Amino acid sequence: MSGPASLPAGLGCPVPLNGGDRVLLGHGSGGRLSAALLRDHILPHVGNPVLCRLGDGAVLEAAAGRLVVSTDTFVVSPLEFPGGDIGLLAVHGTLNDLAMMGAEPRWLTAGFVLEEGLPFAVLDRILGSMAAAARAAGVAIVAGDTKVVERGKADGLFVNTTGLGTLRDDFQPDPARARPGDVVLVSGPIGRHGMAIMAARADLGLETTITSDTAALPPLVEALRAAAGDAVHALRDPTRGGVASALNELARASGVGVTVHETALPIPGPVAAACAVLGLDPLYVANEGILVAFVAPEAADRALLALRAHPLGLHAARIGRAVDRHPGLVVLETGIGGTRVVDLLPGDQLPRIC
Amino acid sequence: MSGPASLPAGLGCPVPLNGGDRVLLGHGSGGRLSAALLRDHILPHVGNPVLCRLGDGAVLEAAAGRLVVSTDTFVVSPLEFPGGDIGLLAVHGTLNDLAMMGAEPRWLTAGFVLEEGLPFAVLDRILGSMAAAARAAGVAIVAGDTKVVERGKADGLFVNTTGLGTLRDDFQPDPARARPGDVVLVSGPIGRHGMAIMAARADLGLETTITSDTAALPPLVEALRAAAGDAVHALRDPTRGGVASALNELARASGVGVTVHETALPIPGPVAAACAVLGLDPLYVANEGILVAFVAPEAADRALLALRAHPLGLHAARIGRAVDRHPGLVVLETGIGGTRVVDLLPGDQLPRIC
Repeated sequence: MSGPASLPAGLGCPVPLNGGDRVLLGHGSGGRLSAALLRDHILPHVGNPVLCRLGDGAVLEAAAGRLVVSTDTFVVSPLEFPGGDIGLLAVHGTLNDLAMMGAEPRWLTAGFVLEEGLPFAVLDRILGSMAAAARAAGVAIVAGDTKVVERGKADGLFVNTTGLGTLRDDFQPDPARARPGDVVLVSGPIGRHGMAIMAARADLGLETTITSDTAALPPLVEALRAAAGDAVHALRDPTRGGVASALNELARASGVGVTVHETALPIPGPVAAACAVLGLDPLYVANEGILVAFVAPEAADRALLALRAHPLGLHAARIGRAVDRHPGLVVLETGIGGTRVVDLLPGDQLPRIC
Repeated sequence: MSGPASLPAGLGCPVPLNGGDRVLLGHGSGGRLSAALLRDHILPHVGNPVLCRLGDGAVLEAAAGRLVVSTDTFVVSPLEFPGGDIGLLAVHGTLNDLAMMGAEPRWLTAGFVLEEGLPFAVLDRILGSMAAAARAAGVAIVAGDTKVVERGKADGLFVNTTGLGTLRDDFQPDPARARPGDVVLVSGPIGRHGMAIMAARADLGLETTITSDTAALPPLVEALRAAAGDAVHALRDPTRGGVASALNELARASGVGVTVHETALPIPGPVAAACAVLGLDPLYVANEGILVAFVAPEAADRALLALRAHPLGLHAARIGRAVDRHPGLVVLETGIGGTRVVDLLPGDQLPRIC
């Protein structure tokens, strides 16, 4: 390791002579080290003509119309996990929030809090993931900010992404637009992200092959829109709090009840097994690459076929229905004919999941 | 204190029976505690019809034209200091970045990372500051996000704000538009924010009456625009790295040299005295309520008068000039007739200043 920690005793100095392989407090100073951090790490990965102007902000050319803005801060631990890392998650998560509003993502900003001592090798991998995810989605990271805090005052790195997208006039899914009779679809297997994170936490000793499902959902939403258009009443990506929380939020926002058929839930065997070991309910486990959709009944078959025709929706399933009974409540009909209310969890099942 | 820490031994439980006065990990879970955090703390302060929809994002009605987006994460330590707190800073900082691009601020997003154990009393004061600052500036906080990390994994709270503003066609200050001959103005006293933070850090034992200059600059920029219009070539708020770094950045972006007259710099006596005690150069100390402007010479007097006619610009001064000699370099002409290059600092003078 180069940098101050390896200098002979008595020669401690806040600035390494040439580089160093870890983030220093000085990289957040607004001085030459900050400029070097930008030049050597940030811009080579996520640079583009707008970002490279390095103004106080970015100028965007927008047509008249409705914009959607969404913001999310990512604090997942560990930073890297089977199937992804915090960078991939930070881009996908905000793109997906825009897509759930029916928007086409256009621009992203990124704000980093780096912990002193973070290896540049880790930062570079995460920036590479962000760049690749943004490129694949056809969006540019147009503005950014980097702060550094002392060792022990953050946990490697946190990243905020804020996204901007444009809305069409003919497609407006809304958490409050679910109606009794709507069919509830889920686009893929439940519980992969949360269980991949759990498995990656060394202290749990959980051995499994589960990988995170982190994915950018805008193309899947576009497939849904093309097939079912305005019959898509409400969309949500079931991240923190899982499918159960997403259904509860939509039920409350729309004032409908929801019934879910337990046997219809696409829960992969390894997720079910790992949840059983840890005493977790997969319905509350976070996902980062699936959506739940409330679709008018006459369009539900078209919507389900469109999901299944897309690589991200191969395992899409019809899992339930919106009802006018028990407004605001989600009720699970179990395999053996019973029912139970699936409420919001009071507190944490899995902290630091995204 | 209520909450888990005060329960009898053996009754430890991750959820307090009724509230509690500190942030718990469960407040970041996406479940009922997250909903309570929103309902009891966030929305009472910064709520508005757009934010209260609690969708995955916010829908904004934008006219056609150019938008500006800017993002900034705030990690200042301590969270509260003479003249302000991190909430005030987080709103002012992003509004000011938009204003430096010539934009009229319209919307803000806010993303919080809270450390487990943060007293709600502190959070409420900070949210109150953010709400007051946004209201005073006529902007709405339209989208937000809150994460909680374990004790010792953050430092109280960090907050990212991302701002959106609209650009006029007839006003386009740009870091690259400074021209030789431009007059360099500063809108007020130099060094207050940084020295107020230094004084607030108990371990420095620095006693002073200096308060942070944190302020929203859009009205001052509007006064400048009304007086000098497109003759305002470049603007920057000299935050991290201070006036020296801001001048260096503009000099490099525009390919001009800058000469600064040391005797013209408005440095308050207490700032000069505190800097002398700590061995700091006020030119590198952060400010949060002033701007530097490069103005075409024929409009410089009008611009200076307009600044001085505004409450935020009473002490505005003409401090130097852009020149075609030494492009990219900032040169200080000292009181005794000497000159010295004022370069970017290599590393940190004052970490965690904003």
